[in-house]
Amino acid sequence: LEKLWGNVVDVVEKIKKLGEDDPRRITHSLKVALAITLVSLFYYIRPLYDGFGANSIWAVLTVILVCEFSVGATLGKGLNRMLATLLAGALGVGVHFLATMSGETGQPIILGFFVFLIAATVTFARFIPAMKARYDYGLMIFILTFSLISVSSYRENGEVIEMAHQRLTTIIIGSFTAIVICICIRPVWIGENLNNLVANNMEKLGKSLEGFGGEYFNILEEGPSMDDKSFLQGYKSVLTSKDTEEAMANLARWEVWHFRFGFRHPWKQYLKIGTLSRQCAYKVDALNSYLNTKIQTPSEFQSKIQEPCTKICSESGKALKELAVGLRKVMNQPTSVHLHIQHSKMEAENLKSLLNTTSIWENDALQEIIPTGAVALILVDIVPYIEKISEA
Amino acid sequence: LEKLWGNVVDVVEKIKKLGEDDPRRITHSLKVALAITLVSLFYYIRPLYDGFGANSIWAVLTVILVCEFSVGATLGKGLNRMLATLLAGALGVGVHFLATMSGETGQPIILGFFVFLIAATVTFARFIPAMKARYDYGLMIFILTFSLISVSSYRENGEVIEMAHQRLTTIIIGSFTAIVICICIRPVWIGENLNNLVANNMEKLGKSLEGFGGEYFNILEEGPSMDDKSFLQGYKSVLTSKDTEEAMANLARWEVWHFRFGFRHPWKQYLKIGTLSRQCAYKVDALNSYLNTKIQTPSEFQSKIQEPCTKICSESGKALKELAVGLRKVMNQPTSVHLHIQHSKMEAENLKSLLNTTSIWENDALQEIIPTGAVALILVDIVPYIEKISEA
Repeated sequence: LEKLWGNVVDVVEKIKKLGEDDPRRITHSLKVALAITLVSLFYYIRPLYDGFGANSIWAVLTVILVCEFSVGATLGKGLNRMLATLLAGALGVGVHFLATMSGETGQPIILGFFVFLIAATVTFARFIPAMKARYDYGLMIFILTFSLISVSSYRENGEVIEMAHQRLTTIIIGSFTAIVICICIRPVWIGENLNNLVANNMEKLGKSLEGFGGEYFNILEEGPSMDDKSFLQGYKSVLTSKDTEEAMANLARWEVWHFRFGFRHPWKQYLKIGTLSRQCAYKVDALNSYLNTKIQTPSEFQSKIQEPCTKICSESGKALKELAVGLRKVMNQPTSVHLHIQHSKMEAENLKSLLNTTSIWENDALQEIIPTGAVALILVDIVPYIEKISEA
Repeated sequence: LEKLWGNVVDVVEKIKKLGEDDPRRITHSLKVALAITLVSLFYYIRPLYDGFGANSIWAVLTVILVCEFSVGATLGKGLNRMLATLLAGALGVGVHFLATMSGETGQPIILGFFVFLIAATVTFARFIPAMKARYDYGLMIFILTFSLISVSSYRENGEVIEMAHQRLTTIIIGSFTAIVICICIRPVWIGENLNNLVANNMEKLGKSLEGFGGEYFNILEEGPSMDDKSFLQGYKSVLTSKDTEEAMANLARWEVWHFRFGFRHPWKQYLKIGTLSRQCAYKVDALNSYLNTKIQTPSEFQSKIQEPCTKICSESGKALKELAVGLRKVMNQPTSVHLHIQHSKMEAENLKSLLNTTSIWENDALQEIIPTGAVALILVDIVPYIEKISEA
């Protein structure tokens, strides 16, 4: 029994932490509940109910299905749902009239044929990548509404148009309720989230890189220390961020009315920056694996290269961090970024010539690591920089 | 007009390619259409329709929503939907009786309160990672059914139990139709897909690695060639496979009845192997970046290390490829894997002592690349090997 109680306390604490980590989750839950309760007023208030009857339930269902965490997802689903219902409803009514013309026995055959045809075609259309990214939900609703209208039209002959019309109206009401509540009460803009994610990733990379320089030469001198090195591991979450970024960019495209980003914000640029950050993270990963090797370095050589190496790390780390700050504020990158990049380029040139002139060494690990790190990072640094200009 | 026609031809060809790339897509579309048509028979055949009335539409909707590409996804959604409907229906009926006891004015208030409470709680529960991974859909259906039953109970006092019962029955019929069609007609087992994905990734890594050895020394001797080097780039798709693998493993857990994998197949092992493959891919990425550097290597040194290096590459590449074959056939790894790993270990030791004894060199690029490549790869090779034993 005590063990059970311990488990319960555990779960409660985890749930509490979930809410504390991101209070927007609690807000979202209350928002959804509010939207559903609002829409269910249709049932409780007689004059409203008399207008739509049992069909008002579609408004409730729509709110539940459309209300998503972010504005982008809600807008995308809501618009998809409304548009798909409109088109499928129209098609369904058309097929219904075609079917009624073919008599008592022909009707179910024609209806069944069209349902089969439409379902197969639209299901296949969901595999087209461009459709899947933005209209997947709409295509499903299209099949759903079409089947609903055309199948049930067989039993409710006279009321097909009425039914299609009511379904469309209730779905529009539900979608708008969801969208309005989602936008008006503490909105979660997925575009801002994406912006922050990409900026955070750049900052993490910068920190890892800045930390690496000092850390590496420390280890050479004193051996591994036991301090907290979590900042060095920050880059790891960048390695696998691809799918998240793509999904977010797809949703962000729906947020056309965002006050900060405007109508034609170049979301694709974020994906490019994301890809470049990832390539940069692979390099940092390669650098970090040298922290675990135990090859000794002659101190003479070490003293020669220590300065340019740490400088490259700190300067390009700073550049990345400032680019992140600039991205967060959606402005041109600060001029100091320019400076840092220039510095790290210079030091990299320094290092290269140093490596070329001093031709006899005894160590293995160090010579290689530095040009890789330096050259790769500078290349990577320059590219997002160019990207940024085209974006800002 | 000609341009338009060109566009149309373009689109048609793309769609054709989509079907040819994976004929299972076409089968899936036909399966969905078949399932919907079958279920809509409820409407066309009078005795069936009389049993369920307008509620039969839920069976059609269920089929549309539950029919997914893979067996795992369909099973997961179907079971989620049935269980959630059962629980939410029971709760909804309970709340309905509680509400009717509190009189005419109290009823909508109590109903509204409970809908708000349940919606907020369950929406929040969807953020719990463990719930999200497997029961996300079920939780949504729970809110949906609960709102549906309790809200509409206000207007249809006497028929609540009848309604809940009919909804449950139709949803069970719909889910079973979808599941049966999905399993019986050319099933797509996501567990098999995951198995193949992980095996393919290992094979690609092996090929890239095998190719790298020869390629690197070729370039040193003859400069970059213009042949097709796509096999060298194969590892790139491994870099970002994390999210796909996790999603697939989540779905694969539903496929408990699969004839080849059985009830307690260790899907988590796949994620481990996947993570190890990815780490291995980062190393290969680091190696590949050396293909673009132009630093000259003295031929004396080159001739010394060429043999062990190419051997390590080819032996560990072969080991990976054979592990992939073994994984595909779901059996213990062939003994030859053992042999290849032993070989590459031996050569790595060789190379290490070679690097330690020959202490004066003039080049930068080469010394470093080899121990990294060798040591890292051997480490990475041994670990999935151990994993495999625990799995097979």
